[in-house]
Amino acid sequence: MSIKPIGDKVAIKPAQAEEVTKSGIILPGTAQEKPQQGEVVAVGAGTLLQNGERAPLEVKVGDRVVFAKYAGTEVKFNGEEFVILAEKDILVVLG
Amino acid sequence: MSIKPIGDKVAIKPAQAEEVTKSGIILPGTAQEKPQQGEVVAVGAGTLLQNGERAPLEVKVGDRVVFAKYAGTEVKFNGEEFVILAEKDILVVLG
Amino acid sequence: MSIKPIGDKVAIKPAQAEEVTKSGIILPGTAQEKPQQGEVVAVGAGTLLQNGERAPLEVKVGDRVVFAKYAGTEVKFNGEEFVILAEKDILVVLG
Amino acid sequence: MSIKPIGDKVAIKPAQAEEVTKSGIILPGTAQEKPQQGEVVAVGAGTLLQNGERAPLEVKVGDRVVFAKYAGTEVKFNGEEFVILAEKDILVVLG
Amino acid sequence: MSIKPIGDKVAIKPAQAEEVTKSGIILPGTAQEKPQQGEVVAVGAGTLLQNGERAPLEVKVGDRVVFAKYAGTEVKFNGEEFVILAEKDILVVLG
Amino acid sequence: MSIKPIGDKVAIKPAQAEEVTKSGIILPGTAQEKPQQGEVVAVGAGTLLQNGERAPLEVKVGDRVVFAKYAGTEVKFNGEEFVILAEKDILVVLG
Amino acid sequence: MSIKPIGDKVAIKPAQAEEVTKSGIILPGTAQEKPQQGEVVAVGAGTLLQNGERAPLEVKVGDRVVFAKYAGTEVKFNGEEFVILAEKDILVVLG
Repeated sequence: MSIKPIGDKVAIKPAQAEEVTKSGIILPGTAQEKPQQGEVVAVGAGTLLQNGERAPLEVKVGDRVVFAKYAGTEVKFNGEEFVILAEKDILVVLG
Repeated sequence: MSIKPIGDKVAIKPAQAEEVTKSGIILPGTAQEKPQQGEVVAVGAGTLLQNGERAPLEVKVGDRVVFAKYAGTEVKFNGEEFVILAEKDILVVLG
Repeated sequence: MSIKPIGDKVAIKPAQAEEVTKSGIILPGTAQEKPQQGEVVAVGAGTLLQNGERAPLEVKVGDRVVFAKYAGTEVKFNGEEFVILAEKDILVVLG
Repeated sequence: MSIKPIGDKVAIKPAQAEEVTKSGIILPGTAQEKPQQGEVVAVGAGTLLQNGERAPLEVKVGDRVVFAKYAGTEVKFNGEEFVILAEKDILVVLG
Repeated sequence: MSIKPIGDKVAIKPAQAEEVTKSGIILPGTAQEKPQQGEVVAVGAGTLLQNGERAPLEVKVGDRVVFAKYAGTEVKFNGEEFVILAEKDILVVLG
Repeated sequence: MSIKPIGDKVAIKPAQAEEVTKSGIILPGTAQEKPQQGEVVAVGAGTLLQNGERAPLEVKVGDRVVFAKYAGTEVKFNGEEFVILAEKDILVVLG
Repeated sequence: MSIKPIGDKVAIKPAQAEEVTKSGIILPGTAQEKPQQGEVVAVGAGTLLQNGERAPLEVKVGDRVVFAKYAGTEVKFNGEEFVILAEKDILVVLG
């Protein structure tokens, strides 16, 4: 079973606390607004343009990203938790 | 008798609690904002573009989707309850 | 004497309570936000596009529709009550 | 002396209470939001489009219209009162 | 010394109370929102369009206009008071 | 060392009180909203259009302008104070 | 390990207080709204246009910029703090 986000949306598997420590990321701030790290597990078909085409998203499956936590919606699926958000709410891709 | 959503709107038959358990989805969160699962039963003609054409929707009848419950409007029709919402308020299609 | 809505607006004659029961529709919800059923009695010339043309509306005279009651403006005309609203505030057409 | 509205604006001479009764219109609702009837006495050059042209307005001088009263600005001119509003705030033209 | 408004802005010299009386205009309403009469003394280069061109303004120097007073910014220049506002905040041109 | 504003932004050196008196400008109003006079010292590359080109700004270095003070951001640079604002927040160019 | 901002976003390494003093910038204002200086360390692929292309950003890696501090999101990465913000929230590039 899989999940396919709609349009410009992206599904992210949030990183566990221990992973974040290993990768060297420390995320500061208050609990409500702190950016969060995770891995892109599915991407939408792209942003709908006024000419009817879709601009493909920049991020791809497997990208590790930092995103503004408050911007997404949490969904549990087969016992795993995902965050669904619009690509524009992703701050950076970690390379 | 059937229902046909307008434009970019989609009609969804919300899943019953027992179905959700079988498919392995567990939806967390508060009652007001929790995402909900359902099946697409009808789709609109598409999003109106500035060139006058319509971009067809991504979802199709029969798709199982997760959506933000607060975004839709509930309508009862022939004894069944449906949620009508814009396609952009659908988070993911379950594959 | 007739009424002609402007642009993307539609004039709807709300269904009486007894009609709604016969057609099998039961509309739930609070009084302020509950969707309402009615018949389209007049439609505007269409949505103005940036190329100066008008995209014709999807609904046509005679369509039975469900709409978000709060979105429209009530007008009494020749003793009959109508609701005037933008087509986008119509949820579904009943087929 | 005449008045010429700007752009997509329309000048309306509101109907007197006795005229409204004769034409069979009864306007319900609270004083603040009730729709009002009147006659179009002047129209703007049209809505500016992104290609620099103007889309002519749908209403024309002499049209009897129903409009949302709160949307316009009242101006007295040569002892007569007019309401100036954007065409989109007109609900219907009476035919 | 002269003033040149930017873009879609217009500079207006507000009419004195005695002039308004002579021209037959009586402006009702509260002090904060009442429309005001004046003469256009300078106009901007026009509204920037998405093709990079500018749509010239409708009003021209010398036009007597009625405008929503709250929409503009008052500037005193060489001892005279002017109101600077976007053309869309002008209601009508007096002919 | 120089400053280069981004996009449609403009850098202005605010006029000193004594200069304003000499040029004959008297700026009324409350301290928070009063328009202010100054000289353009740097301009951005222009407004980004949907075709990817940039529409050059109307104002140029050396222009004396009046602007809405609340709209800009104050920056001190090499001991001098500048106001950075979008060109649309400039009211008029003094000629 | 590197960071790549999304779309029109830019990653900035904020300047330390001692650097700011050396370069001659003094940033006034309250703590919440004061502009801040920093160096661009990574830029996004550009602003998505309606034709599906991307307009490249104006700033480039190595640019020293002044930005509105409240507009960005702070992220710590490998022990260093960065601010991620949209290019439009950058006020000026220091030359």
